[in-house]
Amino acid sequence: MSRVYDRVALIGLGLIAGSMSLAIRRAGLAAEVTGYARSAETRATAREIGLCDRICDTAAEAAADADLVVLCVPIGAMGPVAEEIAPHLKPGATVSDVGSVKKAVVEAVAPHLPQGVHFIPAHPLAGTEHSGPRAGFAELFDNRFCLLVPDADTDTDALERLRALWRGMGATVEDMDAEHHDLVLAVTSHAPHLIAYTMVGVADDLRRVTDSEVIRYSAAGFRDFTRIAASDPTMWRDVFLNNKEATLEILGRFTEELFALQRAIRTGDGDLLFDYFTRTRAIRRGIIEAGQDTDAPDFGRVKR
Amino acid sequence: MSRVYDRVALIGLGLIAGSMSLAIRRAGLAAEVTGYARSAETRATAREIGLCDRICDTAAEAAADADLVVLCVPIGAMGPVAEEIAPHLKPGATVSDVGSVKKAVVEAVAPHLPQGVHFIPAHPLAGTEHSGPRAGFAELFDNRFCLLVPDADTDTDALERLRALWRGMGATVEDMDAEHHDLVLAVTSHAPHLIAYTMVGVADDLRRVTDSEVIRYSAAGFRDFTRIAASDPTMWRDVFLNNKEATLEILGRFTEELFALQRAIRTGDGDLLFDYFTRTRAIRRGIIEAGQDTDAPDFGRVKR
Repeated sequence: MSRVYDRVALIGLGLIAGSMSLAIRRAGLAAEVTGYARSAETRATAREIGLCDRICDTAAEAAADADLVVLCVPIGAMGPVAEEIAPHLKPGATVSDVGSVKKAVVEAVAPHLPQGVHFIPAHPLAGTEHSGPRAGFAELFDNRFCLLVPDADTDTDALERLRALWRGMGATVEDMDAEHHDLVLAVTSHAPHLIAYTMVGVADDLRRVTDSEVIRYSAAGFRDFTRIAASDPTMWRDVFLNNKEATLEILGRFTEELFALQRAIRTGDGDLLFDYFTRTRAIRRGIIEAGQDTDAPDFGRVKR
Repeated sequence: MSRVYDRVALIGLGLIAGSMSLAIRRAGLAAEVTGYARSAETRATAREIGLCDRICDTAAEAAADADLVVLCVPIGAMGPVAEEIAPHLKPGATVSDVGSVKKAVVEAVAPHLPQGVHFIPAHPLAGTEHSGPRAGFAELFDNRFCLLVPDADTDTDALERLRALWRGMGATVEDMDAEHHDLVLAVTSHAPHLIAYTMVGVADDLRRVTDSEVIRYSAAGFRDFTRIAASDPTMWRDVFLNNKEATLEILGRFTEELFALQRAIRTGDGDLLFDYFTRTRAIRRGIIEAGQDTDAPDFGRVKR
């Protein structure tokens, strides 16, 4: 793999930025990767494990002279960070991000960027329930999608370079407009996360079933929800606050559908339940055939 | 491991019965395991792969002379199967089951069993999204819980032998009364399954997001729901129809809580969301510490 950028700056050093640095290094995609995190503790950890080539003490220092600056902070911090680095950006540099919401990020970041700097929002559909600078690994983006959100004015060379970077990190790159992105992600990510958080919260709240029972007997299905509900609270708070409309729309549809199934249970309509449960199996097959999940039983968790 | 029963009969040859046969064989817990399935195709497959020592063409033949008969059929079939085998049961034999609901099974099965036959309901908390005779494997119950539901009149020797069998198959055995079992499982299994089915159904239903988008971009959280929603439709229809009260109670609590979180999103109450998401992380830690799930990121699906 050949070099795509001379210098890449990663602002925020959590799971995604850490994985990007390692994936960039794996394929030799940049001559230097600089990094910055707001927390001194995170910077110290990043230095200790050699996460980037250079860890800086300010965002401005990390961004200075970078050909690509990637904002890897929670959605709510994108605007302030963009404002902070704007005066230090090199003319012709590209700014991107990895946020799970796109319309709000465009609105928060774009107004701060100077003329002559390219802004191309991005969202790699990859992650784990772990967070922080130690959570990253080079293979995170392999065989995953990365959605780019260019607009009609986007510089084609800048876009092609960003595509090459993500492909070099292992991802399949596609373009999507911001509004459609936020709706698709509300379905495939945001609503499922809120539902998992809710189910785990309910279990934790019940007085007639103890926490220790919930934990001991979780293998019957519940534990899958707890993995999702262990995701980073700050990141997810910001996702919901910044993708309100689409998330609430999907949750509304979800509740409607849940009520229909509850009614089928109450009235004993077994045929409706059977047909519904048969239909949902097909989606799973589609995901496995598309290479987006393992066919191993129970995600391969069971030792055989 | 020493022999616990001379002959064990498995009625129904799906994932659980298949895994029991293999686990019994692994530890030498029975001299002979007989099996029966209603479908001729399932019986042929079971014979082809040597799933049991002997596959019978009637439930009566499989149960005849067995020291333990385990009903491994969907909840709705438990009563009819019990009625069918009752005249053929050996005096002193034990009848058990593996159903995910206990009160309804007790009510359906107990009236059919003759005097002198012990009935001890059971529920191993183990499974995968796969079903059928080829889905079983000997390690399914290792380090999982198996809940037994004896009552005050249960024969202590018969109970001790059934405990020994489940321990021999790798499980940790605990006793629980039927009503509490059905509530605990409504929380840890039945409600989560219905919620997963619902979320997958919603995604499949949306006209503004295509099926192929849902499938391609599922790695962002949704795919975990599809695994659960790929579980056996007949089994789950019967679970919901036979644990109505507890499932509807938990779903009611779930909806209440979901509405509170939706309201926080709508009003922009980030503190409420952050606190909620922080609390749910603790439950995940408890499950990992209790050895009931892997700490590997993303269930270890990611190749590192």
